[in-house]
Amino acid sequence: MIDRLRDIVGSKGLITDQSEMEPYLTDWRGRKQGRALCVVLPATTDEVAAVMRLATAERQPVFPQGGNTGLCYGAVPDSRKADKSGIVLSLRRMNQIRSIDRAANVATVDAGVILANLHEAVHAVGRQFPLHLGSEGSAQIGGLISTNAGGTGVVRYGPIRDLVAGLEVVLADGRVLRDLAGLRKDNTGYLLRHLFIGAEGTLGIVTGAALHLHPLMANSAHAWVAVPDPAAAVALLAVLQDKAGPYIEAFELLSASQIQLVARHVENVRIPFSAIPAWSVMIELSSVDASTGLSEILEAALGDAFESGIATDAVIAASERQASEIWHIRHSVSEANKKEGIGVVHDVAVRTSDVPGFIAAADRVSSERFPEAVTQVVCHLGDGNVHYILMFAHAYWAALADKDAFALEVEQAIHDVAAAFSGTFSAEHGVGRKLTQELERLCDPVRYELMLQVKQMLDPDNRMNPGVLLPSTKAAAEGRAT
Amino acid sequence: MIDRLRDIVGSKGLITDQSEMEPYLTDWRGRKQGRALCVVLPATTDEVAAVMRLATAERQPVFPQGGNTGLCYGAVPDSRKADKSGIVLSLRRMNQIRSIDRAANVATVDAGVILANLHEAVHAVGRQFPLHLGSEGSAQIGGLISTNAGGTGVVRYGPIRDLVAGLEVVLADGRVLRDLAGLRKDNTGYLLRHLFIGAEGTLGIVTGAALHLHPLMANSAHAWVAVPDPAAAVALLAVLQDKAGPYIEAFELLSASQIQLVARHVENVRIPFSAIPAWSVMIELSSVDASTGLSEILEAALGDAFESGIATDAVIAASERQASEIWHIRHSVSEANKKEGIGVVHDVAVRTSDVPGFIAAADRVSSERFPEAVTQVVCHLGDGNVHYILMFAHAYWAALADKDAFALEVEQAIHDVAAAFSGTFSAEHGVGRKLTQELERLCDPVRYELMLQVKQMLDPDNRMNPGVLLPSTKAAAEGRAT
Repeated sequence: MIDRLRDIVGSKGLITDQSEMEPYLTDWRGRKQGRALCVVLPATTDEVAAVMRLATAERQPVFPQGGNTGLCYGAVPDSRKADKSGIVLSLRRMNQIRSIDRAANVATVDAGVILANLHEAVHAVGRQFPLHLGSEGSAQIGGLISTNAGGTGVVRYGPIRDLVAGLEVVLADGRVLRDLAGLRKDNTGYLLRHLFIGAEGTLGIVTGAALHLHPLMANSAHAWVAVPDPAAAVALLAVLQDKAGPYIEAFELLSASQIQLVARHVENVRIPFSAIPAWSVMIELSSVDASTGLSEILEAALGDAFESGIATDAVIAASERQASEIWHIRHSVSEANKKEGIGVVHDVAVRTSDVPGFIAAADRVSSERFPEAVTQVVCHLGDGNVHYILMFAHAYWAALADKDAFALEVEQAIHDVAAAFSGTFSAEHGVGRKLTQELERLCDPVRYELMLQVKQMLDPDNRMNPGVLLPSTKAAAEGRAT
Repeated sequence: MIDRLRDIVGSKGLITDQSEMEPYLTDWRGRKQGRALCVVLPATTDEVAAVMRLATAERQPVFPQGGNTGLCYGAVPDSRKADKSGIVLSLRRMNQIRSIDRAANVATVDAGVILANLHEAVHAVGRQFPLHLGSEGSAQIGGLISTNAGGTGVVRYGPIRDLVAGLEVVLADGRVLRDLAGLRKDNTGYLLRHLFIGAEGTLGIVTGAALHLHPLMANSAHAWVAVPDPAAAVALLAVLQDKAGPYIEAFELLSASQIQLVARHVENVRIPFSAIPAWSVMIELSSVDASTGLSEILEAALGDAFESGIATDAVIAASERQASEIWHIRHSVSEANKKEGIGVVHDVAVRTSDVPGFIAAADRVSSERFPEAVTQVVCHLGDGNVHYILMFAHAYWAALADKDAFALEVEQAIHDVAAAFSGTFSAEHGVGRKLTQELERLCDPVRYELMLQVKQMLDPDNRMNPGVLLPSTKAAAEGRAT
């Protein structure tokens, strides 16, 4: 097997040394360790296809890997079979930007292109690719697509799913689906690409993508607005959508408890209000047109909001420095929370209109079942994505007998609240190996059956990233599908 | 069968009288006539599911029907089996708007809601559903979704696929996939809904939908710009995208030959140029914010365009009346062409950047193979969607021995040109019964195999709208899938 792999990808494309393999076998936070026969690094789509044909003949599992920046262990190889430990297939050598079509606003890239490199290349021709997240210096396009990455721009541009104009995918058996025309309109049958977006490498290997580009922004305005409660924040969002819907770049709701932690643990925090407001919203508007009066639009909208009582105080940034001071607080949340204690963070989403109800219900559950926790809310309100956090003191956590079991108990309690609002337990982080049981527990049964049928159709031997997303045994899949 | 159907849907929900069935059996232009056992009109999703279970037990084909406004005969029932002529399943009695969620910008509706009624309902709460087409007074949401309808707003809002936040679908066997949460973010496995969008009723019956709403526009600007050639129009679009990308509501390229026909056959046509330009572009910008200086943005962009020679003359509408005069010409194209002769109209799309190359190549093919035709171009340039028209004199057409065969010859010649640019032969009209052979001929083979596999997975007995999109015999499907 190893020799035949070397024939396909050359010595440069193969790692068999255990210590060199290490970074490919462990998640980036060092929490999970997997194993594999070797790491293969093909340089072309044809090489990927040849590797997949060989893996099919040898009945070896394949674990596709992008930048290995996931949070749910979806890139950790683990076949659970001693004799078929499988191969890690890294896309990192496929790192070419194939073309940038400025008129069509489409960039065509290899799956291994790092997000930050794409940003740089399209900026150079006056365009942006509006996907931004903390790991953009190492996350790769193929992995971002396979996990349907979100990031901070979702309220305006959607997740990466909405930015994909086409895909090139190598299927489990080595067939290549070529769908890179990047057409804006095509009504010739079933659109298959969405099956592979967010499939976490379980249906095929994304080797290339056509991506929609957007114009650069020339102008922005920033505000921090105190609101009496989450319902008022929802009403404020609606007012802003009337006046400035297409300009909303960010709309972030924070609880006082969260801002207090930032003020306690982080340097250079300036609170422009006389007291930290119980609830507040940080807003960014931006426009491609430098003459758009964004601050005036904000002022007018806030004027209406004060009159109707949905805003109680507000600061509009008068300078870039003031804008940075506002967003410094938002971006310091993780740092502050790490210093405070052990936070069990949830990544749920409900409809924007249901966010106030969800928060109230989650607060009730938390105070009844986990009275030791202090709760914080950090919410991308425009997406309905609530990071609802239960913060436990280090001492309390250290004394727990079974930390994993306790964390699961907390998570399930909050997931159940989201489910009661037809919400999701994983808005942007995915399922990976971490949440497969929650998926089986909470997914609509018909949808789950269909997912198993799709898996059976495209990967009948369950060799593509087995154990991720769906149960790892073929029998389990068949048991549900029939 | 009929009695058991009546038990499910009641007498109000069943038509068996042949003359009453007539409108459901014939396409709206009266070109194709089908047949069926009866027409069933369920009032609820549960009734649809019960009908599908019964049809499964009785092995009867099912032909879902919306407003019956398609152009490719996708709603004409034709099982090609004497003993199993099947039932037409009309969604027209499922016509309730279930809810409008202003904060989440989501409307949830029955599939039988007529598009114009949805427009009215969401306008009443200060929102728009930005899908507009000629048939909006009778087209239904379910049919629009099943054909992935386009219309005039695609350059800004995308086709209806981009406006669907969730679906409710009754599967061939009567299972119901409920996906109406309408979340903006959900990363819990395969997203199945895109399989049913544009599937033309061959995989399941769309019974409900959650739809994204957009803010109303407060402000617009209109221009008609003469350009030297299609390449200059592409360059002008790029300039405008830099300055005003998010405001572009329409960007329509027309050949002089097309405008001449409108001037010849239509009343009240005003050409504001000294002569009809060889090529010209009609532009609309719009904004939610009344203070946006759209005319100033247009003027600045056109100033740059004049300097670089990509525009040679231009008129910016100074009043609503002038704007109407411009768009009157665009909207009179069909009327003018019908009066002129027999137009073989193509609905191809290529990338915007390939439009000039496509037009040049199509012109060459036309003049070599069909010298009797005059060609016209009407192009949604922002989408790369070219309606390339070969116009034949009535007398020439009347003298043709086999008109259908000749039309097919013309169509295949132009489709081949589009295919050479990785383009599509059906940008927005779909496949229906009209273009199934073109799909088989031109589709990427791996994609076609996968489409057959998907069909096999969701409709193994080929009872859902058989003969539409894919070959009508089960054997044909199996032959390709294995």
